[in-house]
Amino acid sequence: MTDKEAMDLALKEAKKAKGFVSPNPCVGCVILDKNKKFLSSGFYAHYGAIHAEIMALNKLKNKKLLNQAHLFVTLEPCVHFGQNPPCVESLEKYSWGSITYGIEDPNPQVSGRGIKYLKAKGFLVKKTDFFKLELKRFYEAFALNIKEKRSFFALKTASSLDSVATLNHGESQWITEASSKNISHNLRLSFDAILIGVESFLHDNPRLNIRKEGLEKKNKVVLLDPLGRSLPLLSKSRLLTVRSLKDIYVVSSCREEKLKKSGISFISVPKGEINLKALSYKLYEQKIYSVLVEGGIKTFSYFLKQKASSRLYQIINPSFLGGYRGRYWTENLNVGNLKDKIRLKSLEILKTSPDLFLTGILS
Amino acid sequence: MTDKEAMDLALKEAKKAKGFVSPNPCVGCVILDKNKKFLSSGFYAHYGAIHAEIMALNKLKNKKLLNQAHLFVTLEPCVHFGQNPPCVESLEKYSWGSITYGIEDPNPQVSGRGIKYLKAKGFLVKKTDFFKLELKRFYEAFALNIKEKRSFFALKTASSLDSVATLNHGESQWITEASSKNISHNLRLSFDAILIGVESFLHDNPRLNIRKEGLEKKNKVVLLDPLGRSLPLLSKSRLLTVRSLKDIYVVSSCREEKLKKSGISFISVPKGEINLKALSYKLYEQKIYSVLVEGGIKTFSYFLKQKASSRLYQIINPSFLGGYRGRYWTENLNVGNLKDKIRLKSLEILKTSPDLFLTGILS
Repeated sequence: MTDKEAMDLALKEAKKAKGFVSPNPCVGCVILDKNKKFLSSGFYAHYGAIHAEIMALNKLKNKKLLNQAHLFVTLEPCVHFGQNPPCVESLEKYSWGSITYGIEDPNPQVSGRGIKYLKAKGFLVKKTDFFKLELKRFYEAFALNIKEKRSFFALKTASSLDSVATLNHGESQWITEASSKNISHNLRLSFDAILIGVESFLHDNPRLNIRKEGLEKKNKVVLLDPLGRSLPLLSKSRLLTVRSLKDIYVVSSCREEKLKKSGISFISVPKGEINLKALSYKLYEQKIYSVLVEGGIKTFSYFLKQKASSRLYQIINPSFLGGYRGRYWTENLNVGNLKDKIRLKSLEILKTSPDLFLTGILS
Repeated sequence: MTDKEAMDLALKEAKKAKGFVSPNPCVGCVILDKNKKFLSSGFYAHYGAIHAEIMALNKLKNKKLLNQAHLFVTLEPCVHFGQNPPCVESLEKYSWGSITYGIEDPNPQVSGRGIKYLKAKGFLVKKTDFFKLELKRFYEAFALNIKEKRSFFALKTASSLDSVATLNHGESQWITEASSKNISHNLRLSFDAILIGVESFLHDNPRLNIRKEGLEKKNKVVLLDPLGRSLPLLSKSRLLTVRSLKDIYVVSSCREEKLKKSGISFISVPKGEINLKALSYKLYEQKIYSVLVEGGIKTFSYFLKQKASSRLYQIINPSFLGGYRGRYWTENLNVGNLKDKIRLKSLEILKTSPDLFLTGILS
């Protein structure tokens, strides 16, 4: 196995537990023998489980094979006591040929200490040369959570190549290809909650569930609903087909008493346009650490205008619908001149067929 | 050299004469020795020049090296007498290890005959496994010319990622990055003419020239101007900074006499919306074999609506401008429902940084 293949496999291992370790990060580990033949792999399987490195070590019966072996782990090995003893203490028992990590621990209080510890023990410790953008993306929500104690927001749009998200009469469900549903459901899996605006709720009555073979996960829902227009309808809505009322977080400036009685979770905000950055702190307090914003058009514009989201995912059908009957997903966004344009950095094309799937960092 | 590298180099050779061989196709050729070491290369340099294969052969002094050598050529070698004797007769003098071609000659009257001829002489003749989409794209205008005796139309748009081509007050020139100008000028070089609508002419007074280091080429201009609104202004316009009046083709339903006196070239069309497919035949008759359509917004919509263009090139700045002050380049396009959407097939991402540059076949 090449180093690139090993890190790729470690990332795949990490993703096995996607959606089930929050607020901790997913971690994957691969061990190759001294000749770079595969020996073992492991991942952090759920909140409170043993760490990826330990799982990989435990799975390997014959520890003699670890002589001069190569370890690949997506995140810097931990050096602190959390729910588990520090991984570095388990690692230092063996005579590694090399230890390659994907990214430093984003926690400023421990970042680099695992690497330093292992280097001090005489190991060859190095950062991977591969998948740098993907690794950064993989840990960005965790990094924001740790550093700023607020929830991570990402936008997800689905449109034609000319940015039309829906036709006037409401036809939008099939703008992107049926096969792209996997992308959507995979994305939902990575986030603690899905956020929509009240108009999308009223118009679409969506389920916002995760449909993935062999997998059941009930994401929370955040509903931006300043005036509480959803309240009379929530108890009969399709949101409840996959979750209970308390997993629906209505962000509203209604009077609290009325809402609390209904059984839903409630996030009180001042009257007027919702301050989304302030909301990200409130959601973090509610243990909602990452939020996928799925629309509609007005909601997207608020997030872009307030520069409240860190990342954008776009599923784009390679087709054109035009503005005569189509509604563009940025139609409410007001950028006065070119120098104020909202930029997308670190653009990655994740897929090109049948739909174009791209992502980047909003700034 | 691998076969892939050899065909890549042959394509690069072919492109050296881009813009200077119309109506003939660009062709490039690479010769490797029996051990696949580079020996020689050649290209079709201008209309009436010797063919790429012959240039590559001529450049090689020591013909003994051709024993069991490998020839790569972007287009099937010709078997007919045109301005040159047939290439196959020059090729058959040597004992080739293999002959790899990029694409069959699109001319239905000779397509496959060069391959058949060489195979009959006992050579191993094969089609390349690489750059299939690019080769098809490279020869698509020539193929349409040959098969349908009409001009090839491609659209080129420049916009933000949310499809905004200009801001209300007209600011559009810098939506895409300055470095993407190379892309635009390279594209212009591949086409015999650039087409714009009269409103773009009146609004922008563009030059539509080709700015490329060490290169001067005066493309023709086609102006869609049914009512002849451009006529009083053409003689003072910036179009004339790089070309003469006769290289400006005004497509109009004005009375002919008035136009002919002005010194411009004139293409008469019936009153009402211009039939663009009919126009493609007329342009072919005027020896304009390929046309790059550069806008504006109304013109793009006509081409999309009438399904008159074969290919779309998009230069997309990874940023968002919104519809409040932005004008989307498809805003006039009217697609009634999703099943009538205009599709982009064979999507290719040609570049991702700093701007996204993509292309596909409109259908």
